[in-house]
Order: sequence, then structure tokens, then C-alpha cells
Amino acid sequence: MKKSKSLSLAEIAEFLGGELRGDPARTIHAINTLQDAGPGEISFLANPAYAKYLPQTRASAVLVRPKEADLCTSDVIVLDNPYLGYAKLSRLFERELTQSSGIHPSAVVHPQAKVAESAVIGPGVVIAAGAVIGERVRLIANVYVGEDSLIGDDCHLHPNVSLYAGVTLGQRVIVHSGAVIGSDGFGFANEAGRWERIAQLGGVVIGDDVVIGAGTTIDRGALDDTVIEQGVILDNQIQIAHNVRIGAHTAIAACTGISGSTRIGRYCVIAGAVGIAGHLEIVDKVQITGMTMVTHSIREPGVYSSGVPIEPNAKWRKNAARFRQLDELARRIRQLEKGSSSSN
Amino acid sequence: MKKSKSLSLAEIAEFLGGELRGDPARTIHAINTLQDAGPGEISFLANPAYAKYLPQTRASAVLVRPKEADLCTSDVIVLDNPYLGYAKLSRLFERELTQSSGIHPSAVVHPQAKVAESAVIGPGVVIAAGAVIGERVRLIANVYVGEDSLIGDDCHLHPNVSLYAGVTLGQRVIVHSGAVIGSDGFGFANEAGRWERIAQLGGVVIGDDVVIGAGTTIDRGALDDTVIEQGVILDNQIQIAHNVRIGAHTAIAACTGISGSTRIGRYCVIAGAVGIAGHLEIVDKVQITGMTMVTHSIREPGVYSSGVPIEPNAKWRKNAARFRQLDELARRIRQLEKGSSSSN
Amino acid sequence: MKKSKSLSLAEIAEFLGGELRGDPARTIHAINTLQDAGPGEISFLANPAYAKYLPQTRASAVLVRPKEADLCTSDVIVLDNPYLGYAKLSRLFERELTQSSGIHPSAVVHPQAKVAESAVIGPGVVIAAGAVIGERVRLIANVYVGEDSLIGDDCHLHPNVSLYAGVTLGQRVIVHSGAVIGSDGFGFANEAGRWERIAQLGGVVIGDDVVIGAGTTIDRGALDDTVIEQGVILDNQIQIAHNVRIGAHTAIAACTGISGSTRIGRYCVIAGAVGIAGHLEIVDKVQITGMTMVTHSIREPGVYSSGVPIEPNAKWRKNAARFRQLDELARRIRQLEKGSSSSN
Repeated sequence: MKKSKSLSLAEIAEFLGGELRGDPARTIHAINTLQDAGPGEISFLANPAYAKYLPQTRASAVLVRPKEADLCTSDVIVLDNPYLGYAKLSRLFERELTQSSGIHPSAVVHPQAKVAESAVIGPGVVIAAGAVIGERVRLIANVYVGEDSLIGDDCHLHPNVSLYAGVTLGQRVIVHSGAVIGSDGFGFANEAGRWERIAQLGGVVIGDDVVIGAGTTIDRGALDDTVIEQGVILDNQIQIAHNVRIGAHTAIAACTGISGSTRIGRYCVIAGAVGIAGHLEIVDKVQITGMTMVTHSIREPGVYSSGVPIEPNAKWRKNAARFRQLDELARRIRQLEKGSSSSN
Repeated sequence: MKKSKSLSLAEIAEFLGGELRGDPARTIHAINTLQDAGPGEISFLANPAYAKYLPQTRASAVLVRPKEADLCTSDVIVLDNPYLGYAKLSRLFERELTQSSGIHPSAVVHPQAKVAESAVIGPGVVIAAGAVIGERVRLIANVYVGEDSLIGDDCHLHPNVSLYAGVTLGQRVIVHSGAVIGSDGFGFANEAGRWERIAQLGGVVIGDDVVIGAGTTIDRGALDDTVIEQGVILDNQIQIAHNVRIGAHTAIAACTGISGSTRIGRYCVIAGAVGIAGHLEIVDKVQITGMTMVTHSIREPGVYSSGVPIEPNAKWRKNAARFRQLDELARRIRQLEKGSSSSN
Repeated sequence: MKKSKSLSLAEIAEFLGGELRGDPARTIHAINTLQDAGPGEISFLANPAYAKYLPQTRASAVLVRPKEADLCTSDVIVLDNPYLGYAKLSRLFERELTQSSGIHPSAVVHPQAKVAESAVIGPGVVIAAGAVIGERVRLIANVYVGEDSLIGDDCHLHPNVSLYAGVTLGQRVIVHSGAVIGSDGFGFANEAGRWERIAQLGGVVIGDDVVIGAGTTIDRGALDDTVIEQGVILDNQIQIAHNVRIGAHTAIAACTGISGSTRIGRYCVIAGAVGIAGHLEIVDKVQITGMTMVTHSIREPGVYSSGVPIEPNAKWRKNAARFRQLDELARRIRQLEKGSSSSN
């Protein structure tokens, strides 16, 4: 959410390390899109398709690449990567927390827990025995931190987050509401039809600068830990099963599920609603498009996909019915080819 | 859940605006299906396939269309739309909240928040500075309402709901447990492999009479707001990304995910587990069947689908393997056709 | 999470009913994999593919089948089903709850609720009027239990679980964080484009020994109850709609969604991210592979599947485009066959 803040173009150019072409004293109080920005607002051009808006924008200033600087009638700040500039600048306009440090009277902190003095422990937060809460950590409200869990400096946990016992968060981790970290992995042995629960004795280790989306669930390991390496970004409603390992700086979009013991490399980009089977290995720098069903390991970097395209229902029904004949159709083609070659 | 309540058939007929054929003084204490209803219970015929149960039903009365009224041996209330009559009647038999208005002593309400006197603020609820809670609002328990969020009159938020700062709910909005509204959109810029977080400066605006299911997550906008228009109904575990706009009176079933900046029209019906890519436009009155992968905009009303049908695993394996040869098979058919035409 | 505990091999062999070949006094303090185990740790051989690790393992003892007992250089405990032995043994090494019985001062228990003295009611728990909490039940923190809900003996509800009114849990049920039981089924009647809510008057009945994963949602029934029979195990982020019935000892993996009124048999195994349409019947002992779209009832036990395999994106695009021509391609094959037979 926005906060009201005022910065001069000189300050912004210096903060972003860009070249200002315009009035250094002009004040900026908000960021907006090229189409919607008005006086006092700054905008940016990331996607070249939007360059057409440059001449008409009412923004007081625009972040642009060198080659597009001359298309602007407004002041500009020239950057190699205006989208990155927007990212950095956006955080200056973000609402700051008004809660002051200390433990709210309604929070329940076990006497054997350790909470840094600079931490904000909000209303209804519960911290169990042996937990350690680092400097400037913010637990907004109704967060649960289980026994012996460790939360590194500058972590930010939104309301109604649940951390089970034995979960370790690095520094600057953000966890959104409803997320659950350290729930039991889905491990059972079958005895004559009945399921015998396997205690999940591992933990969860989350690296520095990881972001975990709303409603995302990350199970604890069976014997070893489940591991999310540094810089990983996870969107909402992702499911990560026990003993999964996700490599540093990988990004995963919403609603994706990863089954047990699968290892995903570094710098991967996995789109939304992808399903990944268990015990697979996916190397670094793999991209997977939305709703793909991943049933085997991926050994080479590249872009991977599955699924069938959307169609009007009447057409789809006919095509989908033919899918059931696909093997038979292929055999019939082979047969025709034999006939064709023998007749030549 | 049911509550015990007793209504006469005359009262029910008047409430629904239907024609009673039967004893106006007969008392009804519950609704039930045609098969299971007994004396003192009222039922309804919506699906004609169930007309076969009319002659045998033990219900004391049945809501029916004019054409089926004579098939009943019980009393009947004649309506044009008995299913709609059932909907309206069902709410009379719903359990009412026993919590009385006022703020529970364990709730934490910031002195700069504003709470209507008729509102019910249950145990463990946390309301941040600047929030405004309307008349007769019910926040059952352990709900979090962020800074400057506005909750319109007669809203009902179930336990463990999280509203971030800057979220606006219209009137009569229902939010089920575990839902999260206003979490950060998944916006990051990449700098040499690392993800730089983009502050999400927009809010979320929810219209009147919207229903939001359990565990559903709705992200705040990056610069503009995420918008759910009036009368939209959302089932459980739906994911709505930043800057999505959903048109009035659209219904979306469980587990569907909608990617960023997509706009969905009014009066759409989207089934469960559908995945919709980002930056698309879907016009009014589109229907999408379950598990469809929506990868492009939909410009015409109608029914749309994707996916392949379920089969016994052994057959499916053969057909799925052939999918990988589909382009090659199509070329071989073309080749055969060429041979065939040249041989004629 | 692990706890520190020490058991002799004699004790373990007796507990598991296995034959010990080795030193009965040797003490074991942990379980580990064959590859990672060290002195003082016990391991197990379940998957024959790991038999290669038996000669080198540094584990102090291994649970093995009779036929593999001689491959070990360490002490062994011989069992018919070492994986089941591991399951049972694992629970001895599980961290025990340190919370003592009784109601935490920050919990809010309605005077008309009934809580067994041996129950643990943790911080921030809210229990509504008419609820009944059985012996040795553990409600860890910030759990909500609605009016007239019944929680059987020895149930364990993790933090931030929401139980609506009128939900019944059997004995020994485990519910993980963020799960919601008893939210409204998605029932609406349409009146001239607007959705009229149908009150959901049924409840939810959960049998003995059921496990419910993190973020899983189970809706209450419209008129009858939603029913999960005894021994069912549900992973994370599963969605179960109103009036679904799941037969005893069925296992369902994460992210699967089941639409309204569908009945699933006993001893089924349903993998992750499966979507099951409404009003279907699935008999006992059906297995469904991951991401399958189930659009019709399944009348015979067996393994069922749908979906298309993952491919490099460039190949997939070509094959997926051909899917839209599948019906036409099939007709062209038929045409070629006609030409071919007429030319013979």
C-alpha cells in the first residue's frame, strides 16, 4: 500500500544511480503507469510495446533506457534497466509499519524463548519454548512460532502464519498470511489396508531473502530437512512436500505442487499450477510453463511444457474423444504407409 | 448448520410468493431432499430427473413448478423456480449467531480504528489503525484487519481470515476461514539472477454481496487495485493475482488460479481448477469447464474447454506416448494423401 | 521433529516384534537412512534398490526382511515389513508436546462448552458454546472450534485450524495448520443473473484416525453431512466440496479437488492435483495418477490416468496445435483407408 512521501528527482536519480535529464528539484510523491500518471508522479518504460505512451504521458518524470530517452517530453532518469529501477524505487513508497518494537501484552511468549529487543511481536502472537527471534523481526499478529524454531534478523511474518517446531528461517525472509511451514510430510506405511503414520523427524530450512506467498505450505522432512535455498521466491498456494530441495534464486508461481524428495535446481522459473512428481531431479535454469505435468527428471536447461490448448467446447469434445484412439490411429497410419509402399 | 425453527406453510408460501395447495396451518421445521424428508419437513423439485421421487416422498410439503404440482400427494407450494425458493427458504433455517454485539475483551482494536457499535468483534480479533468496521459486521474470531482497511455494513468474516492494509470490502461480503485478501502481488525484477522485490502499492476492492471461499487468496495490486465487482461468488482455494479484475456476478469454482492483470467479464461461470494466464481479457458470459488451461483471451461468449479424458492407465500410457508424435503423424497423413491423390 | 531418546536393540526388537541378530544392549538414539546413518543410529531397507547400501552402511542396526538379513554387516532386526517397522519406530523418536493439560489463560472457552480436564487448550484458542472437547485433545494455539462441534479423544489440532459449527471429529484425528472444516458449501441459485445463497444446513463428520493436511478445506453439507470415513489420510491443500463422501482408508495426495456430492470408495489411492467432477461414484480400490481429470464415474477397481506428457516447449507447441486437428486427422485417416481398400 502506498504511503505519502515526497522525493526530489535529484534524490531519486542518485538512489537509482541514473542520469537525470530535467529539474533536480522537482518533487515526486508517487509511482504510476505511463497511461495513468499525473503531475508529481514518476513512471517507467519497461516493455517497449508501451513506448507509444511516452509522448503523451502526464508523468512528471519517467525512468527510461538511453535509446528511449528522447521520446519523452517529460523529465527522464536514464537507466540501463528501468524495470529494476522501478522495483527499487517502489519500496521507498511502501507503507511502513507503525507498530513499535516490543511484545504486545496479548502475545504469549514462552519464558524459554528468546526475542530480540528490536523485534515487533504483535497481538495474539504465540512463541513456543526454545524459539529464537532475531533483530527487527516483525510478527504482525496471530502468528505461531513452534518450539526451537529460529527466525533470522529482519524477517517479516504476516498475520496467521504457522511455523511448526524446528523450522529455521534465514535473514530477511517474508512469509505471507496463511502460510504453513513445517507441517508433517505425507508419510505413511500400509499395514493390511490401514495407514500407519511415519513421524516426520526432519525440519525445514529456509535461506536468506526467501519470499513465501499466502497459503503456501512447506512440509518438514521425514528424516532429513526440506530445504529452500537463498533468494527463492514462492507465490501463493504452492505446496512443497517433504524433503524437497529448491535451489537458490528459483522462482515458482502460484498453485504449483512439488512432490516428495524432488530436487529443483537454481535459477529455475516454474509457472503456475505446475505439478511435479516425486523423487525427480531438475537441473539449473529450467523453465516450465503453466499447468505442465512433470513426470520425469529434466537433465538439460531449457523451456518445457505439457497440456492441450483451450477450444470451444463442441470442438474440444470431438478432439478429446479422439485422444482415446490416438494409439490406434497411429497404427492405422502405419498400416496405410505399408499398403502405400507395397503398392508402389 | 440447522437451527430449530418452526414455520407454517402459509408463512412459507407468503415468504416465497408461491401458491399454496394444502393446509396453511401445517408446521414445517426443516428442509430435506425428496428421498430423505419426513413429516414436518419441506422438500423441493429442481432437477426433473428427481420427479420420480414425488409420488413416494414423505415430506409434508414440496416446492414444485406448476407442471409437476399434480404429481405430488403431499401439500405443495407452486413456484416458477423451486430451486430459487429452496435457496431463499434455506436461509430461514440457518443457525443464527449467538455472539452479541460489542468488542470481546480479548480482541485488540487500535485506538485509531473505528468500529460500529452494532458490530460483533469476537475473541482474538486484531484491528489495526485507521480501519473502519461497519454496522452489524461480524468478525468471528482471530481475524486480522490491516491498517486503513474498510469493511462495509453487514459483512461476515469467519475465523482466521487475514485482511492486509488498504483492503476495501463492500456491504454484505462473506469471507470464509483461512482466506487472505491484500497479500503482496508476485512482482519482482531480475538483477543478474537475483530477484528484486517490487513493492505492491495498490489495494484490493471487493464489491457488495461478494462471497469469498475458505483458503482463497487475493493479492493487492502493483500500482492500481485488484478489483472483484459486486455479486461475484468465489469458492475455496482460488488464487487471484495482482491487478486482476473480475466482473459482476461471475462465479468461480474451487482451486482455480487467475494470473496477474487478467480481466474477466460479468456473468461468467468458471469451473474448478481452471488455470488462466496473465494479461488476458475474457468477455462477459463465458463459461469454462473444469481444469481448462486458458492461454489466450476469449472474445466471444460461449463454453470453452481443454484437457484430455480419463482412461485406464495402460491405455492412457499408449495414447499419451503418441501425443509426442502428433505433429509427425499429421505430416505422415499429409504424405499419404499426396501419394493417394497422385496414384488416382 | 526429533527428540533425544535412547532405546536398546532388545527394546526395539520387542516393540516391533522382530528377530534381533546382534547385541541386545546396543543403544540407539536416532533413525536415519542407510547412506547417512552413523553409530548409534538405526536404519531400514524398504526399497530393494537400496540393498546396495547395506554392506557399507555405518548404521548400528538395520531393519531388514529375512532374505536381506545376511547382506548386512551391522546388527539387524528381521521383519516381514521393515518399512512398517520404520513407521512404528519413528513415532518413538518424535518430539513430545511440552504443553501441560489445562486451558491457557489467553484461551477463550464459552461457559456452555465442555472441555475434558486432560485436554491441552493452548494460547489464543477459541471454543464456542456447545462444543465438546474430549480427553487428551491438544489444541495447540489460535484454533477456533465452532458451536456444537465435537472433538473426540486424543485429537491433535495444530495452530490456526478453523472448525465451524456442527463439525464432528472422531478419535485420534490430526488436523494440520490452516485447515478449515465446515465452511459453507458452494451452493447458489441464480435469479436473473444474480446469485442467491443457499444456506448450508448440513455438517461435517470425520471418522477416527483421519489425518487432514495443512491448508485443506472441507465444506459442510447442503442438507446432509459431508463425510470422511475412518482412517482416511488427506495431504495438504486438498479441497472437498459439500456432501462428498470418502470411504475408509482412502489416501489422497496434495492439491486434489473433489466436487460436490461425489462419493469415493474405500482403499482408494488418489495422487496429487487430481480434479474430480461432482455427482460421481468411484468404487473401492481405485487408483488415480497425478493431475488426472476425472469427468465420469469409475465402476471398476484399477489404475486410471489422464494428461499429456512434458516435452521441450518447441516440440510441445507443434503437437498441441495438432490436438485441435485431431478429429479432422482421424477423418482423413478414415478417408485414406476407404481409398486404400477401394484401390485393392
